[in-house]
Amino acid sequence: MATEGGDPTRIMVAVNESTIKGYPHPSISSKGAFEWTLNKIIRSNTTGFKLLFIHVQVPDEDGFDDMDSMFASPDDFKSMKHRDKIRGLHLLEYFVNQCHKIGVACEAWVKKGDPKEIICYEVNRVHPDFLVVGSRGLGPFQKVFVGTVSEFCTKHADCPVIAIKRSAAQTPQDPADD
Amino acid sequence: MATEGGDPTRIMVAVNESTIKGYPHPSISSKGAFEWTLNKIIRSNTTGFKLLFIHVQVPDEDGFDDMDSMFASPDDFKSMKHRDKIRGLHLLEYFVNQCHKIGVACEAWVKKGDPKEIICYEVNRVHPDFLVVGSRGLGPFQKVFVGTVSEFCTKHADCPVIAIKRSAAQTPQDPADD
Repeated sequence: MATEGGDPTRIMVAVNESTIKGYPHPSISSKGAFEWTLNKIIRSNTTGFKLLFIHVQVPDEDGFDDMDSMFASPDDFKSMKHRDKIRGLHLLEYFVNQCHKIGVACEAWVKKGDPKEIICYEVNRVHPDFLVVGSRGLGPFQKVFVGTVSEFCTKHADCPVIAIKRSAAQTPQDPADD
Repeated sequence: MATEGGDPTRIMVAVNESTIKGYPHPSISSKGAFEWTLNKIIRSNTTGFKLLFIHVQVPDEDGFDDMDSMFASPDDFKSMKHRDKIRGLHLLEYFVNQCHKIGVACEAWVKKGDPKEIICYEVNRVHPDFLVVGSRGLGPFQKVFVGTVSEFCTKHADCPVIAIKRSAAQTPQDPADD
């Protein structure tokens, strides 16, 4: 039953930027989930797997990020969106570079929207064998305020999901940070 | 980062008997979860992984299974427990034989109690890298009546958990069956 050759196992990995360092730095939990996947699943079998990185950018709800921006024409808005996209691509570059170094095939792309919903939508579109998501490992009280993408995906994504909790040693002072 | 040698990844797989065929037949969902693990995770890397099979026997709540039994002395009860244990071991034999055929290291053992609680207890004791559980993929209405071990473990087990849903094609007429 163990597969000698055949199609690689396609693992979707949802990644986001750090809330502390911002782009292009990956969040602690998505970096952890990625490294866990390499160390515990892929191991030395680099040709047996393909990683599919999805990064969902949250549309700016309060416009705070754009306080320093001038909008004088529709083109200014275009360039802003372009800039955000570029930042997202720099984030993905980190993961793609790591895969390239160790010889694991990968694809990576950026989407905009509500991360939990877009991830589930992309699972339906791309049909990975399973989905890996990082988790901050928040308690029930903390979750009320920040929401958890991993929990939503575990319930609603149409493929097996494995949530990798951030270790206690890596938890920043404010556990909502990542 | 990909591990060439080192300790194998230890995957705990929770298995149970079929509700239709009984011992020694594995349930559809636990057989499915096992085969998924072989095909999608272990693949050709048979030395990179070790499977830890846990089977939890539910103590007989209503005595129905023992309607044909005579209990005349404490020893009769002992032999009953022994017989149940033997049945559980025959179930595990199925999985151990499959592993042996393809050359994957494994361990297997039986416990008694509430499956969801014992599985989480065993996770704490054995510290697997992750836990694989089969799931019948029941809807919210069906779940009220039968409970779901996979959902409980996903929330409470102290390691990453991946629940593998039974495919629609394998679902028996009564979806609570397995």
